[in-house]
Amino acid sequence: MEVVEGLEKHFGVNSMEKLMVKTLSSEGDHLSVFMGPQQSVINLRTFSNGLVSIIIDYLREGEEEPLLTTLDGKALEMALGKLGKDIKSVTLPPIKRGTPFDVYFPLSDGRLVEYDVDKLIYDERSPFQRVQIMHSKTFGNMLVLDGLPNLAESDLVYTESIMCRGTEDYKDKEILILGGGDGALLNELRQENPKQIIMVEIDEMVMKICKEHLRSACGDTLDSYTGKNYQIIVGDCIKYIEKCVFQGKKFDYVISDLTDIPISETPQGEMWEFIKKVIRMSFSVLNDTGKFLTHGTGISCTNQLAMFEGVVGELEIPLSFTCTHAFVPSFLEDWVFYQIQRKTA
Amino acid sequence: MEVVEGLEKHFGVNSMEKLMVKTLSSEGDHLSVFMGPQQSVINLRTFSNGLVSIIIDYLREGEEEPLLTTLDGKALEMALGKLGKDIKSVTLPPIKRGTPFDVYFPLSDGRLVEYDVDKLIYDERSPFQRVQIMHSKTFGNMLVLDGLPNLAESDLVYTESIMCRGTEDYKDKEILILGGGDGALLNELRQENPKQIIMVEIDEMVMKICKEHLRSACGDTLDSYTGKNYQIIVGDCIKYIEKCVFQGKKFDYVISDLTDIPISETPQGEMWEFIKKVIRMSFSVLNDTGKFLTHGTGISCTNQLAMFEGVVGELEIPLSFTCTHAFVPSFLEDWVFYQIQRKTA
Repeated sequence: MEVVEGLEKHFGVNSMEKLMVKTLSSEGDHLSVFMGPQQSVINLRTFSNGLVSIIIDYLREGEEEPLLTTLDGKALEMALGKLGKDIKSVTLPPIKRGTPFDVYFPLSDGRLVEYDVDKLIYDERSPFQRVQIMHSKTFGNMLVLDGLPNLAESDLVYTESIMCRGTEDYKDKEILILGGGDGALLNELRQENPKQIIMVEIDEMVMKICKEHLRSACGDTLDSYTGKNYQIIVGDCIKYIEKCVFQGKKFDYVISDLTDIPISETPQGEMWEFIKKVIRMSFSVLNDTGKFLTHGTGISCTNQLAMFEGVVGELEIPLSFTCTHAFVPSFLEDWVFYQIQRKTA
Repeated sequence: MEVVEGLEKHFGVNSMEKLMVKTLSSEGDHLSVFMGPQQSVINLRTFSNGLVSIIIDYLREGEEEPLLTTLDGKALEMALGKLGKDIKSVTLPPIKRGTPFDVYFPLSDGRLVEYDVDKLIYDERSPFQRVQIMHSKTFGNMLVLDGLPNLAESDLVYTESIMCRGTEDYKDKEILILGGGDGALLNELRQENPKQIIMVEIDEMVMKICKEHLRSACGDTLDSYTGKNYQIIVGDCIKYIEKCVFQGKKFDYVISDLTDIPISETPQGEMWEFIKKVIRMSFSVLNDTGKFLTHGTGISCTNQLAMFEGVVGELEIPLSFTCTHAFVPSFLEDWVFYQIQRKTA
């Protein structure tokens, strides 16, 4: 009752038309639906556990004034707070739908985050995935693949973490990068005086776009597919490794910058099989002391990380691993990175 | 129509009862309200601009299975996608309400973020504010004041940024900290061999709680209110500065770790007057070459930052400023820090 009065006070008396009232269960679950100003639909609901929820849903276009600001919400909360000391209330910022481009991206554990994306720079489908470049006020240009933030201009720490900059010595080493189409990893590794780096990326569109819009991450690395000490191969990395096995080519490092650890109930299914295959095959082209470096997922996904570690432990080749983690700005999470090598007897 | 069929397919035929249908405007704005399983209320709405929105609202307690997972939402989207190539759709993660403690905090520009808070450790009202300690899986313990994240165990960079570690030389200097009740700033400054640090914090509850739950940030600094080269005064910092003016006491640095720049239309009102007063009075106890260091707000709040810079430029004392910024993990934003000093002739 008081909630309705509060809303009427805000929107103006007679501005709300009651569309329906319904008792949903005998335990105190009631629903009222109103139409307010600007064809807003207001669901007012009481739940059996004492919760009262209000959803105000309306169309706001362009620079129109909001119907209810967070401050209005706070004022309504204050008014309701007077009803009793024990009333707790929360006003959430508006949840935007139908925006011209996505502003919400889920974190690895499914949490909701609104990014300060102010521009969609590129949006196409390659034969492999949806490729987008978005501009975030905080993170600069962001590469978004199939709706998931992949790498932003703010994320040098991601690249330095996956390659263990400062701990691994790449001088005169042979390195194979799996994926890495944004070019950042190759760009940083080039500066470490390795003997040779081969990068195998399947999606040429990603490289084409990052060359243009993620230049602060990839530098001039993607301008040419061959350089003094590197070569970029457009193709399937598994097929490339098979070729290396056939030719007897070996590497000191394989760095896999492919897909994240899948979020699943068990370490089974297509994606997990792919991950196992990648690790198994990588060790078939790694020197005895060679290292496989890769990224995991967000640190709060403890189950997924444990599954990955289980998978590594159960491969035919006895492997041991270490892990590190770093907060990657545009991921808004602490991200886990793995360093895997053959167990020494 | 197809949307209803899709939902019925998911929830089971005959599982949805139509509660009402209403045409809200003649331009194609329609509302249907259904009751689905578990007393869920489903608002299905079409808007004049072609947007179709679905809100599914239900009570989920404890470890109950969700009624609709994000994957289900994706499946529904796929089914709808078959209706036409140009259909774009988004499924948002569930918006949680009535949670035992807040998990959503707004960023400086009002964006919504869901934190991975898994425990409310402390929640009391001091005479000055609501003081909470929450545990985040990513950021560790977080001090939350009046519902806004203040400092977390992950945020050494905040402290190092406000004090300009590495750029300012505090050796043998006299420093005044305004606020800073979490103790982190004092703790870091103590390590820089200053002559003396005075910290004036009004809210003893904050210090008491941080001493216990934010120990990785404040170390042993708050265990005693006096130490070799520091003193903590519980009180109003303005009154303390007045006392210093009266006694002729001067400082080399005043570091203000008080409130954020207010979010407002114009640089007026109580909070802005307070900020002006703090700066003006700080310069009355600063040496001629003394510096006033403080924090601003999120980098995307360009209006607020410009207002602050305007305020600094318009004070009676001619002042110049520089600014830096750093990504503060638990703020999930690039934060701006100011260094202000007297203009040299």
